Amino acid sequence: MKEVNTFQSIKYDRDKDCLEIIDQTKLPFHKVVVSLNSIDDICNAIISMQVRGAPLIGLTAAYGFYFSFRENSTWDAFESVSNRLIQTRPTAVNIRWVIEKARDRLKNVNTGSLKAEALLLANELVVEDAQICKMIGHFGAKELQRLWDIKCKRAIEKGQPRPIALNVLTHCNAGMLAASSWGTALSPIYQATESIPIHVWVDETRPRNQGASLTCWELMQHGIDHTLVVDNAGGHLMQEGLVDCCIVGSDRATARGDIFNKIGTYLKALAARDNQIPFYAAVPMSTIDFNITDNYQEITIEERTGEEVRTISGVDSQGVVRFISIAPPGVKVSNFSFDVTPARLVTAIFTEKGIVEPNVREISSLMNN
Amino acid sequence: MKEVNTFQSIKYDRDKDCLEIIDQTKLPFHKVVVSLNSIDDICNAIISMQVRGAPLIGLTAAYGFYFSFRENSTWDAFESVSNRLIQTRPTAVNIRWVIEKARDRLKNVNTGSLKAEALLLANELVVEDAQICKMIGHFGAKELQRLWDIKCKRAIEKGQPRPIALNVLTHCNAGMLAASSWGTALSPIYQATESIPIHVWVDETRPRNQGASLTCWELMQHGIDHTLVVDNAGGHLMQEGLVDCCIVGSDRATARGDIFNKIGTYLKALAARDNQIPFYAAVPMSTIDFNITDNYQEITIEERTGEEVRTISGVDSQGVVRFISIAPPGVKVSNFSFDVTPARLVTAIFTEKGIVEPNVREISSLMNN
Repeated sequence: MKEVNTFQSIKYDRDKDCLEIIDQTKLPFHKVVVSLNSIDDICNAIISMQVRGAPLIGLTAAYGFYFSFRENSTWDAFESVSNRLIQTRPTAVNIRWVIEKARDRLKNVNTGSLKAEALLLANELVVEDAQICKMIGHFGAKELQRLWDIKCKRAIEKGQPRPIALNVLTHCNAGMLAASSWGTALSPIYQATESIPIHVWVDETRPRNQGASLTCWELMQHGIDHTLVVDNAGGHLMQEGLVDCCIVGSDRATARGDIFNKIGTYLKALAARDNQIPFYAAVPMSTIDFNITDNYQEITIEERTGEEVRTISGVDSQGVVRFISIAPPGVKVSNFSFDVTPARLVTAIFTEKGIVEPNVREISSLMNN
Repeated sequence: MKEVNTFQSIKYDRDKDCLEIIDQTKLPFHKVVVSLNSIDDICNAIISMQVRGAPLIGLTAAYGFYFSFRENSTWDAFESVSNRLIQTRPTAVNIRWVIEKARDRLKNVNTGSLKAEALLLANELVVEDAQICKMIGHFGAKELQRLWDIKCKRAIEKGQPRPIALNVLTHCNAGMLAASSWGTALSPIYQATESIPIHVWVDETRPRNQGASLTCWELMQHGIDHTLVVDNAGGHLMQEGLVDCCIVGSDRATARGDIFNKIGTYLKALAARDNQIPFYAAVPMSTIDFNITDNYQEITIEERTGEEVRTISGVDSQGVVRFISIAPPGVKVSNFSFDVTPARLVTAIFTEKGIVEPNVREISSLMNN
């Protein structure tokens, strides 16, 4: 299978001994590569959302230990660096996961080797993430191929012309820009386009518009046919038979297959169910929280600043980036970041170990494979 | 019942002999009253969406005949004026409805009286619309009172404190700014606030953001507690028990109770059903199309320019209105304006004649009342 990286969202540069990332706050208007050289740089990049997306945040954080030990090669720094990283995005489970990986791997390492070992770990995690995303796409692409075959067969049976494409709807950005490579929700699409024609409906994904600014940009880089729609449109598209399946990513999943993802995901899952359209979540096994088998509603959903709703950025006709207010001054805003799509609305979950139905038995058995 | 007009979206000024409207493209940042003095002015106001909302478009169009006959008092002008009005918003059924009203009323009028009779008709339609909206609110408010009583009773039974407010979610703007007065979906809220505490969740309503810019502004003028949310948020709010009911307007309804309304309405109706929350549509009887009892999917849904999705307007920190691009240049966009909420998802319909269940029998019997 050919690799599809037309850009790298994260890359350690050996010659310059720095971490290069794409400043995602500048997309889709400017592709700016930024060099990170210190733990301060790492924290700022995460806080300012130059990097975002659950896997990518974790990978970026991993290099924080390397830069810290390069500066000061003592284990004493570990806890303070960990705390600084956690504070950048307090609800990002991937940062906590990376910290535990680093602790296990580095705690018994000689002081003189801390720096080298931390770099080795971070680089390994990047490779591992790419492999996981690739396998998610491998299994997901097979499912898309199956849907395409059914669609073509039905058209033949009805005496209709061969369909133009398989129409996939996605929400937010769970692509290459959210991971080291391939992405999660977009990986099946990248891999399936090698053999079948795919068209992607891209949800704008208010309030931060990651669909419009990141997913569209990313698909453009790869020449994958796509159409941008407002978040309100998906239900109508499904009623009109214009969507063949939905694929979304996941920030967290429960052992029974409930999906925590970007706010608005649940609404699309409801519409998919109402129109008998398959709804898939692409979920790395590390994202599944086996401590939650019930009562997912007890998990607190991050609420972010209302400024994300009241203001928006873009470029004017001269290409100058501008922030503008789009709501009445002083209006009260509520801005929850995620919602939960109950397992009952999820057709199947794409993982790096295979495709499973969303229930405790199937998911647990995959974990033990 | 006290009147609540803190502003008038449409008002014929006798002294100046002109029609005054609020330029809704300037809201929520500037309240600019514009004087319309000719059929050209009327058409431009509708095309540029200085006036919008199904009832208000129709009422504004009605004054087009007056201005035209004031200029040229011959019946010959009727058809050309009608055609010009239809071309402003080809899918607006209210313009066609007003044209038929005008034709019936004016076709046998003496040339010398055309001007006066056309003005009389337009003014009467404004008064009639206000009365219809008021009655929709009258019946709707009773339903809200009923929900509030149930909410309070349940809290007492559970030993919980008295609820703070009845939480109503609305989509787009079906308020005073969309009609002559009261509005349709907001009328029950205006009238119920006289006796019960109400809090309104306002959907932003992409792509034109009528919720953020018009509904929030309108509720602010009346001091009604409200919170702005992105369109993606409603499902989560309902899952969390933060919504007691939904009320939306309707651009068109079928005789069996299917509701054509702003894109995204269907998604909220699905979420309401999934969480056992009442979902109401406020529908003037004139909006019900008795020719459609089935096959609503054959009706073409207006598709508007992609620029509405790619660009957005607001004010910068200096208060200057700016248009900015928020999507990659050249991205393909689909922009359907409306969707259809099937009757099966609608709890009840608020009309000026009473509240009905969404089915042909009930709706028809109301029509014959």
